[in-house]
Amino acid sequence: MRKDTLVAMRLTPATELEYRYRKLQEQMAADGLDAVIVAQNADLFYFTGSVQSGSLYVPVQGQPIYMVRRDAGRARMESGLKEVVPFGSVRDIPAILATYGYPEPGRIGMELDVVPVTFFERYLGVFPTAVFCDATPHIRRVRMIKSHYEIHVMMDAADQVDKVYRRAKEVIREGMTDIELAAELEYVARKAGHLGLIRMRVFNGEMFMGHTYSGADSAVPTYTDTPLGGMGASPAFGQGASFKPIGRNEPIIVDFAGSVDGYLVDQTRVFAIQGLFDRLRRAYDDMLRVQERMMELAAPGVPWGHIYDECLALALELGYGDSFMGARGSQVSFIGHGLGIEIDEYPFIARGFSDMVLETGMAFAFEPKAVFPGEGAIGIENTFYLSNDGLKRLTHSSEELVILPL
Amino acid sequence: MRKDTLVAMRLTPATELEYRYRKLQEQMAADGLDAVIVAQNADLFYFTGSVQSGSLYVPVQGQPIYMVRRDAGRARMESGLKEVVPFGSVRDIPAILATYGYPEPGRIGMELDVVPVTFFERYLGVFPTAVFCDATPHIRRVRMIKSHYEIHVMMDAADQVDKVYRRAKEVIREGMTDIELAAELEYVARKAGHLGLIRMRVFNGEMFMGHTYSGADSAVPTYTDTPLGGMGASPAFGQGASFKPIGRNEPIIVDFAGSVDGYLVDQTRVFAIQGLFDRLRRAYDDMLRVQERMMELAAPGVPWGHIYDECLALALELGYGDSFMGARGSQVSFIGHGLGIEIDEYPFIARGFSDMVLETGMAFAFEPKAVFPGEGAIGIENTFYLSNDGLKRLTHSSEELVILPL
Repeated sequence: MRKDTLVAMRLTPATELEYRYRKLQEQMAADGLDAVIVAQNADLFYFTGSVQSGSLYVPVQGQPIYMVRRDAGRARMESGLKEVVPFGSVRDIPAILATYGYPEPGRIGMELDVVPVTFFERYLGVFPTAVFCDATPHIRRVRMIKSHYEIHVMMDAADQVDKVYRRAKEVIREGMTDIELAAELEYVARKAGHLGLIRMRVFNGEMFMGHTYSGADSAVPTYTDTPLGGMGASPAFGQGASFKPIGRNEPIIVDFAGSVDGYLVDQTRVFAIQGLFDRLRRAYDDMLRVQERMMELAAPGVPWGHIYDECLALALELGYGDSFMGARGSQVSFIGHGLGIEIDEYPFIARGFSDMVLETGMAFAFEPKAVFPGEGAIGIENTFYLSNDGLKRLTHSSEELVILPL
Repeated sequence: MRKDTLVAMRLTPATELEYRYRKLQEQMAADGLDAVIVAQNADLFYFTGSVQSGSLYVPVQGQPIYMVRRDAGRARMESGLKEVVPFGSVRDIPAILATYGYPEPGRIGMELDVVPVTFFERYLGVFPTAVFCDATPHIRRVRMIKSHYEIHVMMDAADQVDKVYRRAKEVIREGMTDIELAAELEYVARKAGHLGLIRMRVFNGEMFMGHTYSGADSAVPTYTDTPLGGMGASPAFGQGASFKPIGRNEPIIVDFAGSVDGYLVDQTRVFAIQGLFDRLRRAYDDMLRVQERMMELAAPGVPWGHIYDECLALALELGYGDSFMGARGSQVSFIGHGLGIEIDEYPFIARGFSDMVLETGMAFAFEPKAVFPGEGAIGIENTFYLSNDGLKRLTHSSEELVILPL
């Protein structure tokens, strides 16, 4: 293994990892959990700083044990955790616990929203008398508060999407296809270190680097829980860019997820060649007003659902009942979503979340958008962070609607 | 929705879909299953021709019902199935079955290797007296035999990876980084319609378009069940290209998954600037010999494990005990893998599969590779198809080791 490459890479600091598992242990203690077994890649990365094949055993007290099937040597170099042990199969876990003097757990939390049934059954077999419960709400609550370190990495991802935005301004031409434009932007992101992968927690959640589409195609709904969808290049992956040629006087949407060192930001900007018709232009300004309303409201202690309700009310007031966050029949019930390692983290700026409140340290994307079938979609998206000094915008590309010459 | 775009897209023919669900129904009848509920995207695409949010209910007799939450209109246009119905939640299923006069199922198959625990529990709640079992082995067996239509699409994907290969010959320069090279190749693939996404069935299976790496980095093991791994650009996604500059006299691996209209092919070719040292050059020729051995053996009725055993025996005979399919300690127990919609389908040309045999219609990638830590990896990969006239190579780029001028 080339040590110099690893040193040049950004490794999650050990102090950061300790802080994270201690926060999880606090929640476990409050909820009477003896252990949490972390198995999913995004959670493993968060708690170990590494994504190797294996599981992390977090006891309610004491050091977590990172049990690695493949590659243990690499996990030791990448992870700042003290205890990294090779293991062959789930059946080895009781013996490993015995080595550490850890008692057999009676109540075990696992990520039941993401681990598959047959995978889970192997753990049931090893701990037949234990009670299993879903640890994802606990993990989500730990992960929803970002550290300065995490925000720092996300700032780098914001610089990456700004490069994408600048490239879009240079490269958009009438007649090029949406997928050609997407290829140009992905190329820039990749050279700037984009990992390629966008992690999404929800079952069947799939996303490529972003959604780039124009005109009527931007208003096509699809299976993803997003206000816009897009045709895509095939029904096999019916979202994002298609082979539609870009025309003049239609909105061109660049909704792009930047990705640096495992962290994401999300940004949407709109471009048009020659100009845009009044209704869309006005809608763009109105979506900016919805964003402003959110910025006035977002403060520690405010319920996520309250922000959603107020912003939705403004959108309705402005006349977007049939177009806000999707065309009638395809409207989604959120305007914003937390993000970090995954694109669908807490907080959800969504309908019904009246008992969950904003806290300092939360990061989320906010994306008021309006959809006009047959015509196109329009809107804005930025990634925000609730700092000690109030709400900060992490994504920093200019918010003007970009009108390009013919 | 723009009908003209849909018409230009390749839709799975209705006759094809009917053939597929009938094959599944035959297996269900033999195994005493009353129904299979298909929920995962790759399987949904296979059986419906569409990937919208919802589930497909396949009764042991009669028409399958594609129940779609979002977007039902789109599912109707994309899918060649007769019965596409909107539904709101899993709780609606009994009423939908009643509408069709279908009896309440007693034995239900679901994809228990991929559906998460909490997702599965919702179905348990709706059918509390039913017996649930894993339908994935049945689905895998249907999907492992490719139709002419599927092979046709995979041929287009093979043309796409050939474009990638040709571009690699043009663009590789000493001093460019692995990730720069990857970006160039992904750009070409994307413009040729690559969907971006590589579907992998195994839990935590993650892959970007391919693996591009050079020299010692190509010999770094990682978490994926692949002979090679790579450093990647971050421990957050520790596989594939890193920021390592490409040097002369080292192997440059381009292991690329082509993707057209939902179907994959897999191809690996090796490049070097100026030349390669004897050991690696010899290993390349020896891996070609292992491929030849496979080609002599592959015929209907031959057990998957037999091909693995024979090819492994040849590799050992040739002196690759410490390097074949990974360096000692990181060796994988397969040489080939089926592929189509996912990159990890049946057949597995792997240790222990002595009772599963090759059949006409199977497609698989075969990738004999040798790994020398600190020095690099080398090998070949092609995608093959067992036709009525014997084994055919779908990927068709030249198999010579490509030596580029300095």
